[in-house]
Amino acid sequence: MNNFEFYNPVSIIFGRDRIGEIKNLIPQKSKVLLLFGGGSIHKNGVYMKVKNALTDFTVKEFGGIEPNPTHETAMKAVEIIKKKKIDFLLAVGGGSVIDATKYIAAAVFVEGDPWDILAHDAEVKKALPFGTILTLPATGTEMNANSVISRRSTLEKLAFSSTKVMPKFSILDPTVPASLPPYQVANGIVDSFVHVIEQYLTYPASAPLQDRFAEAILLTLIEEGPKVFKNPADYNAMANLMWCSTMALNGLISKGVPEDWSIHMIGHELTAFHGIDHARTLAIVLPGIWHVFRKEKSEKLLQYTERIWKIKEGTEDEIIDKAIEKTGNSDKVE
Amino acid sequence: MNNFEFYNPVSIIFGRDRIGEIKNLIPQKSKVLLLFGGGSIHKNGVYMKVKNALTDFTVKEFGGIEPNPTHETAMKAVEIIKKKKIDFLLAVGGGSVIDATKYIAAAVFVEGDPWDILAHDAEVKKALPFGTILTLPATGTEMNANSVISRRSTLEKLAFSSTKVMPKFSILDPTVPASLPPYQVANGIVDSFVHVIEQYLTYPASAPLQDRFAEAILLTLIEEGPKVFKNPADYNAMANLMWCSTMALNGLISKGVPEDWSIHMIGHELTAFHGIDHARTLAIVLPGIWHVFRKEKSEKLLQYTERIWKIKEGTEDEIIDKAIEKTGNSDKVE
Repeated sequence: MNNFEFYNPVSIIFGRDRIGEIKNLIPQKSKVLLLFGGGSIHKNGVYMKVKNALTDFTVKEFGGIEPNPTHETAMKAVEIIKKKKIDFLLAVGGGSVIDATKYIAAAVFVEGDPWDILAHDAEVKKALPFGTILTLPATGTEMNANSVISRRSTLEKLAFSSTKVMPKFSILDPTVPASLPPYQVANGIVDSFVHVIEQYLTYPASAPLQDRFAEAILLTLIEEGPKVFKNPADYNAMANLMWCSTMALNGLISKGVPEDWSIHMIGHELTAFHGIDHARTLAIVLPGIWHVFRKEKSEKLLQYTERIWKIKEGTEDEIIDKAIEKTGNSDKVE
Repeated sequence: MNNFEFYNPVSIIFGRDRIGEIKNLIPQKSKVLLLFGGGSIHKNGVYMKVKNALTDFTVKEFGGIEPNPTHETAMKAVEIIKKKKIDFLLAVGGGSVIDATKYIAAAVFVEGDPWDILAHDAEVKKALPFGTILTLPATGTEMNANSVISRRSTLEKLAFSSTKVMPKFSILDPTVPASLPPYQVANGIVDSFVHVIEQYLTYPASAPLQDRFAEAILLTLIEEGPKVFKNPADYNAMANLMWCSTMALNGLISKGVPEDWSIHMIGHELTAFHGIDHARTLAIVLPGIWHVFRKEKSEKLLQYTERIWKIKEGTEDEIIDKAIEKTGNSDKVE
């Protein structure tokens, strides 16, 4: 096992009817900026719950954060924060809104060009505190230090990571994503699945617990995914997807083991150039990566196929072909 | 799935040669009290590593914390802390030393009788900050809010829990427990195993990921346990035991599911009255609990027997009898 550090101070508030608790989680007398995306929070009732909980606070709003959030949009929020002396951010949304909020929280304190954080690994020295209310389980950003931001002017899509931009709290209420359209649920399942794969499907590193944790998430996604895709209002199925999705990228399963984020790296380019949904780029890229790296990844591919799909008969190449086939057609599997 | 909160800000520093890093983890100019047990840290080289790392700090020492640490011993440490104006604690030891340090950290700020924290659930309002260097993987205390303290004068053994007494950091170096005697390694494996059981072997709660995480720890303990028992200096086996042991009781697997700590509660009484090692009391009590509650726990006992021991043939009673037998004889299992 490799040496590692594990530090994750995000407070998770999970379950039904938890949104109202933000009034006790946000420091008293905060000037809050409420950040959100395209307005679905108006339709699903989340906006009103948030507003009702924040009557004792000064609240400004910043909507319109786009999927694959951009530097350009983030800079507009930074301007408002400085002008209105905002001191706490509340991100209500999926990965895009939360990732944008992380970047905004850090950019507020940068004197030069904040894009340096992404383009030149400039250190994040300070960030505004923020909490999140997750509306779409997918990216795991609600419990990690990562953010991915795009820049329209240069067609770049880059990532940064800093413990300074970990949420103070994240509220995961499985009733919130209950009205999501099926393609967004599917994207969330695929994104979570591939997050696990990037941290698991490399080569053995004498870390059997990390392997089994990763396999636990994959098996649960395969089991619960079709249920929640069919009916996002199935409370337990959505709860399980949410917890899988958070656990897939909160640092737990990558500790002490090698990682290979090539599927994501190629996928980001596809999104930057062609605007394809993030999860769809992952689904496009994964089979080719496994096909090309079948030798380098063979031990883990065989373990994956046996433990996840219960297949161990055949030559190595036959088993790996099966792994690729099964993974791409998991809804058809008995 | 039940509603839950998850909050664990303990910073884990895992791997070879990490002890020296305490000089950067402890706030500069701290007056440190180094707490330890019976002196094994003098034999295994840990004491010298710690002292060498702390040359820039004022360091006092408090040794002699006993297994099943007592209120009486803790009060002596509290006296020294007050007299010497100590402001940071460093626990170097196993569960006993760390649990005692948690109680001491809280007791320093109690005006009345600190035992009220244990006997009457008095709230811990404040605690001294502390870090730990784990010398014996077993209790999971290095990454949680819990502490168990005994009182000689009343033959009581009680537990308390407060996020105020979570370590700021814990160093898990698998070379440190490499010289442990076999019975202590065995105790650690059994303690970790039963921690998982208390959070897992209850009744189904639509929480398949938590179930699989629990099963991942059990399977890994069954696989790695015999290796590390045979040779505590087997680095990877000890690393895996350490990580299993921490994960078994850091809050992760209990989130959203029912728990049943009856094996521990009965075990604590056996230790308080008869001085039997904690883990041995658990091994004594577990089979009886499963036997008596075979109806109430039947669904989970069947799942456990199938997923852990791959046994699913027979009547319900026969399978549960097998579960009890296999668990008690895991070293004999093919």
